[in-house]
Amino acid sequence: MEIAVIGCGPGGYAAAIEAALRGAEVTVISNELGGECLNRGCIPTKLILKKKANRATLEKIIEQFNDITEQTKQGMYYNLKKHKVKLINGIASIDGTGTVFVDEQRIFYDYLIIATGSKANVVDLPPKYNVIDCFELLKTPDKLPPEVCILGAGAVGLEFAEILNNLGVKVTVSEQADEIIPSADVELARRLRITMQECGIGFSLHNTVPTCKNVICCCGRIPVLPFGAEFLYDNKKRLPLNENFKTIIPNIYAIGDCTGKSFEAAFAVNQAQRVVDDIFSIENNHSYEIAHCIYTSPNLAWVGTAGNSDLTVRYSLNEMLYNFDEAESAMMKITYDPASRRITSVHILSKQADTLISTAQMILRQNMTVDEMRTVCFPHPTVSEAFREIAMRAVK
Amino acid sequence: MEIAVIGCGPGGYAAAIEAALRGAEVTVISNELGGECLNRGCIPTKLILKKKANRATLEKIIEQFNDITEQTKQGMYYNLKKHKVKLINGIASIDGTGTVFVDEQRIFYDYLIIATGSKANVVDLPPKYNVIDCFELLKTPDKLPPEVCILGAGAVGLEFAEILNNLGVKVTVSEQADEIIPSADVELARRLRITMQECGIGFSLHNTVPTCKNVICCCGRIPVLPFGAEFLYDNKKRLPLNENFKTIIPNIYAIGDCTGKSFEAAFAVNQAQRVVDDIFSIENNHSYEIAHCIYTSPNLAWVGTAGNSDLTVRYSLNEMLYNFDEAESAMMKITYDPASRRITSVHILSKQADTLISTAQMILRQNMTVDEMRTVCFPHPTVSEAFREIAMRAVK
Repeated sequence: MEIAVIGCGPGGYAAAIEAALRGAEVTVISNELGGECLNRGCIPTKLILKKKANRATLEKIIEQFNDITEQTKQGMYYNLKKHKVKLINGIASIDGTGTVFVDEQRIFYDYLIIATGSKANVVDLPPKYNVIDCFELLKTPDKLPPEVCILGAGAVGLEFAEILNNLGVKVTVSEQADEIIPSADVELARRLRITMQECGIGFSLHNTVPTCKNVICCCGRIPVLPFGAEFLYDNKKRLPLNENFKTIIPNIYAIGDCTGKSFEAAFAVNQAQRVVDDIFSIENNHSYEIAHCIYTSPNLAWVGTAGNSDLTVRYSLNEMLYNFDEAESAMMKITYDPASRRITSVHILSKQADTLISTAQMILRQNMTVDEMRTVCFPHPTVSEAFREIAMRAVK
Repeated sequence: MEIAVIGCGPGGYAAAIEAALRGAEVTVISNELGGECLNRGCIPTKLILKKKANRATLEKIIEQFNDITEQTKQGMYYNLKKHKVKLINGIASIDGTGTVFVDEQRIFYDYLIIATGSKANVVDLPPKYNVIDCFELLKTPDKLPPEVCILGAGAVGLEFAEILNNLGVKVTVSEQADEIIPSADVELARRLRITMQECGIGFSLHNTVPTCKNVICCCGRIPVLPFGAEFLYDNKKRLPLNENFKTIIPNIYAIGDCTGKSFEAAFAVNQAQRVVDDIFSIENNHSYEIAHCIYTSPNLAWVGTAGNSDLTVRYSLNEMLYNFDEAESAMMKITYDPASRRITSVHILSKQADTLISTAQMILRQNMTVDEMRTVCFPHPTVSEAFREIAMRAVK
């Protein structure tokens, strides 16, 4: 079986390796291994955040990032080769005849997986504003402006706000909603905002207008599809997909950012696995508990959705004996169904939320009740014990 | 219902609070809130390890520890009071008549829970050796000896070895077994030993003889029972317990270190919950996936037991893009049953093993297969993604 994959970000790469593991002959067409995530997105921002880059250290951290990127690309290249995946460097176009075109080459396929990612949504602003690409800015630490306004208080906007604030830039974040991160728990989002304010970051809520001349747009992302993909659209120029990410053409799938369904790398990888399992008719008990994480200080992470009649329990992570370096605002919050007592969502504001949330994913995946969570024997002393502590507060 | 609890370490405290939450009238007899764990064990060692105390900072960290201990005791005191638990300061003795004696007082009970902990097993050594109490030593940083030998390469021995090595003391660890931490995975134990050796700690395996004059005994612990507890013994002077930690007297239970079954705080808390549920006839789906953790750099943590015919998969955590501060020796190792493909054990050597292991506990608790683990959508980029990466290496 021949499978073509367009794009080699987290989704495309995972699809290629998974398909090759299943025995397919795979061809990947990519003009940039790692995609946005590795080259300008998750990886550099998380590295800079974790290292708490300041003006003195930024250049070295960017060098380290370049090394990591280079090594990772080599690793990806090696791994693709090891799994006998053919890699074509270039920009692909498609048509309705079952062919992928790259320059003069034609690639035929039994199945096509489109994983072409997304691009930043740069809003139109009057010419008096100077719209800056934040990632480009970080490469030239000497040219940092004294002041910037970030439009949009989602994950990307907040992470850049923290990075620039650490670098001594005066930052104001403009957000049109009532609170930052409208998709997160509003109480923890507010706690995070106040913590960030205490670190010197300004916020302007209910506002879409930049507060100064230099503007960084973090207003979401726009799906990108290959040239010629219009034959996959419906009459509203949207890309319809079935539950297994199949387009209207039975042997063409789309995954990741380009579907517009989610702009998170983890989701793209999950979709890649589901698509390959669908192509190979493999039954798998796929997990759908997508955890979200914002890598600010502290991290904000969450999984699950509270029902309307659910009960809420809060636990201040500062109360924990062992968690002696925790942020003052740190909190865990769970919701559970009062009848079944099953946990429906977990929200964590903590320095370690990025790691802790995976335990919460597993808790949700097994439909655990608060009473069962109370009895889990976490090692002592660890921050994971918060799951037991919070469950204690829900004892009947 | 009146419940008496003797001891207020992690087990006794948990038993008292759990019983009070269930509506019992609880009396706790304790001569030291927090027990060994808070006052000389888990908490001070983990604090000193996490802070990487050196000679310049130790005094300040010990001060911080004293503050934490004081605050925690106040917190425990307040929480006991809030739950209407009566606290008696003193040393208890018991007899077969259903009475607890503390000085002149007599306490009657419907149920008694014994949680009197353990003491260090100090081996008899010829007088030429100078046996040192390590925790006392840390309180007098000026008097640190130039060289010590630690007898026993279990959790306590290794943690003290790292602490003293960081403080500039020449440390050799003597261990009678073939490898350090005989209860852990031998491959990861070896990796940890080599990493510790590279930091300057000496090891003498197959050896029970001290390598120098100053000796610290970390040769396990000895259960401690209240005065007069002999009526609970069998004819081999052991304390028989049923599966719910009930002694031969139907209304007397024993939990934690004093049972000799385990010397881990988390296990004592778990037993406290099980005992209280047993007293109140509460059905609970208790977790038995006890995770073990050694808080060295890197941490070594594990959960589960491999079967003889199980398959093993290894994954070097250094390969992870995001895990850029990881130890070179860092590794995750899983075993799974080849027929059911269920994961039977997870072993982690990593700076974050203490937190990661709780996700592994949840993975084991739900009898997850390697194929299911592969499909979990962990946030990106996080070290939790190692669970997916290692599962990829077990694809059929």
